[in-house]
Amino acid sequence: MRKKIISMLFCVVLLFSGLLAGCTAGEQNTNTGTFVLGKAPKYVFMLIGDGMSAVQINAAQVLNGNNTLGEISTNNLLFASFPACGMATTHDSTSFCPDSASTATAMSTGYKTHSGVIGMAVDKSTPVTNIAELLKAEGMKIGIISTVTINHATPAAYYAHVASRSDYYGIALQMAESGFDFFAGGEISKPTGSNKDQKSAYEILKEKGYTIARTAAEIAALNASTGKCYAIAPNIQDSGSMTYAIDRQEGDISLADLVAKGIEVLDNKKGFFLMAESGKIDWSCHANDAMTTIKEVLDFEAAVQVAYDFALKHPDETLIIITGDHETGGMTIGYASTGYDTAFNILNNQKLSFVEFDKLVKSMQKADSNLTFEKVMPVITQYFGLKLPSGNAEADAADPLVLTDYEVEKLQNGFTQAMLPSADREADEEYALLYGTYDPLSVSITHIINNKAGLGWTSYAHTGVPVPVYAYGVGSELFNGYYDNTDVFHKLCTICKID
Amino acid sequence: MRKKIISMLFCVVLLFSGLLAGCTAGEQNTNTGTFVLGKAPKYVFMLIGDGMSAVQINAAQVLNGNNTLGEISTNNLLFASFPACGMATTHDSTSFCPDSASTATAMSTGYKTHSGVIGMAVDKSTPVTNIAELLKAEGMKIGIISTVTINHATPAAYYAHVASRSDYYGIALQMAESGFDFFAGGEISKPTGSNKDQKSAYEILKEKGYTIARTAAEIAALNASTGKCYAIAPNIQDSGSMTYAIDRQEGDISLADLVAKGIEVLDNKKGFFLMAESGKIDWSCHANDAMTTIKEVLDFEAAVQVAYDFALKHPDETLIIITGDHETGGMTIGYASTGYDTAFNILNNQKLSFVEFDKLVKSMQKADSNLTFEKVMPVITQYFGLKLPSGNAEADAADPLVLTDYEVEKLQNGFTQAMLPSADREADEEYALLYGTYDPLSVSITHIINNKAGLGWTSYAHTGVPVPVYAYGVGSELFNGYYDNTDVFHKLCTICKID
Repeated sequence: MRKKIISMLFCVVLLFSGLLAGCTAGEQNTNTGTFVLGKAPKYVFMLIGDGMSAVQINAAQVLNGNNTLGEISTNNLLFASFPACGMATTHDSTSFCPDSASTATAMSTGYKTHSGVIGMAVDKSTPVTNIAELLKAEGMKIGIISTVTINHATPAAYYAHVASRSDYYGIALQMAESGFDFFAGGEISKPTGSNKDQKSAYEILKEKGYTIARTAAEIAALNASTGKCYAIAPNIQDSGSMTYAIDRQEGDISLADLVAKGIEVLDNKKGFFLMAESGKIDWSCHANDAMTTIKEVLDFEAAVQVAYDFALKHPDETLIIITGDHETGGMTIGYASTGYDTAFNILNNQKLSFVEFDKLVKSMQKADSNLTFEKVMPVITQYFGLKLPSGNAEADAADPLVLTDYEVEKLQNGFTQAMLPSADREADEEYALLYGTYDPLSVSITHIINNKAGLGWTSYAHTGVPVPVYAYGVGSELFNGYYDNTDVFHKLCTICKID
Repeated sequence: MRKKIISMLFCVVLLFSGLLAGCTAGEQNTNTGTFVLGKAPKYVFMLIGDGMSAVQINAAQVLNGNNTLGEISTNNLLFASFPACGMATTHDSTSFCPDSASTATAMSTGYKTHSGVIGMAVDKSTPVTNIAELLKAEGMKIGIISTVTINHATPAAYYAHVASRSDYYGIALQMAESGFDFFAGGEISKPTGSNKDQKSAYEILKEKGYTIARTAAEIAALNASTGKCYAIAPNIQDSGSMTYAIDRQEGDISLADLVAKGIEVLDNKKGFFLMAESGKIDWSCHANDAMTTIKEVLDFEAAVQVAYDFALKHPDETLIIITGDHETGGMTIGYASTGYDTAFNILNNQKLSFVEFDKLVKSMQKADSNLTFEKVMPVITQYFGLKLPSGNAEADAADPLVLTDYEVEKLQNGFTQAMLPSADREADEEYALLYGTYDPLSVSITHIINNKAGLGWTSYAHTGVPVPVYAYGVGSELFNGYYDNTDVFHKLCTICKID
């Protein structure tokens, strides 16, 4: 009887103690699922690796791990040690292989909607409030960062409400109207509209009081007294996005730099909500380029480190959530031809992204109308390490970078297709499987080097592979468990007490 | 000040209340990670889906989900609602794509070891104690179930210590010596040794006091007063394993039946530890047969349901852990040719496993030395739904089961290879990628129907994709987070207070 009373006392204390000031949010993880709320976090980081699931993360952990036989181990990323790790399903209302618009909307608003829809319910017309808007109403400052264009689907889901993600101009106008405090990353897609006949969105942002910083010096000058601002990284690579980490030059701005700048600009007495997206993990997964993907994931980790360092200085006031919106590419560690072996160290021979390689070959083709496979092969060797057989069978067998006859044929076929004008290329089912919509040469190269490393892909699109959700800090334990991506919003509301 | 005192009081109560009788094990999930132990569970279920990761699980959830446009949703498995879900890395000491021997050893003993090694440390000679042995020493009864042979790698890791998983006879001898209370599932592999010249392991088991039940009636008769016993399902299909769920006939015994029987045999005052493996999820993933895999996962869920129903009757005394030892096949929901679409309902046309289909074609080939593709195609249609084009382009385009020209070619090539004696088949890299070591016809069929459904594979082996760990009941919250598979052992020890 005495034990029962003490147990009851424990439960009562557990139930109410969290409601008292000074406590970290806590969860009584019994089967009853009672949740005990502490104080809401003052600082919330929502860090999204677009297209990043457990495999992209583990691929980075394997590449940086110990590959010595008998001592194999992963070198885990910072967030793998976060106290909470759950898993979220990502389907949207129209697909089990959803897009970033709907999945980011699910996480930002708690609503499932159609692929391609941003910030609107399943009827494609009712705007639904997102977590950034709710937290702004609470007095927090808001920051939105993306390594791709700032009006791309994922960042847009945190400030815009449009029926189609392709309405880039409409999204940019809502960005200007948002009143949010800090935007950063890539450029604005279609800043003068689809027909290039609208008033520049950059001009409208300025009229709405935004300072636009376009150089490293201008970005460095931004601070807490700047007011509303938009930092555009000077290192823009493709489609208005920031340079891939693998291609970055000294002095270029990274996602981590922008998260640090965001903290500087946003920090204030009422706290802030900062969403930062690494958008090109998704892009390189679409292209089935594993090394570029892994470098992006490691670069994302560097941005998480900035948030984590801030959290360490602000214990009991900070929440960091790390997740992907969906998986891209159907990446797996393991491939049919390598079986139980992997050789990720091979990937270290890759020196640039598929994007820069494509540019390189295009420039060679422009300079030489008679460009042959033999002329391109040395460039492939230079940037990917892959070599043609030397003729010495023994030496070739010992070198994992030497191409097999089967691989040489694949590469030559890819080269042949790549040299043709797009309209003249094969248009059959096999072509689509081999190359998707990518350059037939570079995608052949990345497939071969990936497969040699023991890494496979099943798709050029998004998949229905669930994503992990890591969390650190105030209320993080609520992100344990198996749930739907819409619950990311609801859990955040619960923790921030805005439900 | 008063708040601080109350907070301190809360912490003190939280720290010690768990040590008092009658409490469920609980975890204070703050960043300090303090763990508060309650009473150890009396009943522990360790349920392993061999080769099962988040994708195999979600594929089952997608197949049973709602596929209506605008209302897409998964129909989650029972264990998806368990209060805890973490994620474990699965590499062993020699491979990032590990085998079941080492991964089951990691979970059963906490030791990383070489692929192929069971219950021994990385030196391949030092036996390391497993959780079943530790809990037996605490007085619990022990049960080991597998749908594959009972001396296969995963079950063996819970009772044996051998340098090579291929030492089936040695494992069987250790099974007889284990003194464990209940074995069930498949047969014994190589019961008279590799050279078939040893004393039958079945005889040795009998001499050691085991009752061996081989019929449904004999199995039904087993109960708590039987003493040590080994129930062999009468429905044996391939290599001594139990029938795939998709092929099961009325009256056949399932994994769920054996878990229920295990509970009946093992239940006693001191409790029990029951390890049950669904071993053929792995086998069908090796063969890239998605529908057979999904049916196995659903059948595994039925076994979990039995444990869960028991847990509901024994609240605060039961712990259920659900996990995979590694992923097999590199399965993804999504495929290059289907992009953002899936059509899992197509899979419902598959009526048997690749194993039964292979038998069928073999029997046709035996009866007809002039077997042609045209003669086999109706059988393919009958058992998989796939059809040759009718010639009516419009009707064909509207029917997702009609094969494209590219698919017909794939199927014909597979048939041609399948009709050749193994020694006469192509032995090149492309053959290995297309068919692995499987029958070229059936693996072509499952690839085609899987790909049409929007489901891809990258390997015929295991992969380095991390696995989810779901848990319910006493101490389950300890299984939240991101950790290594060796931690499954350590967490279990902590909860069972045998560290």
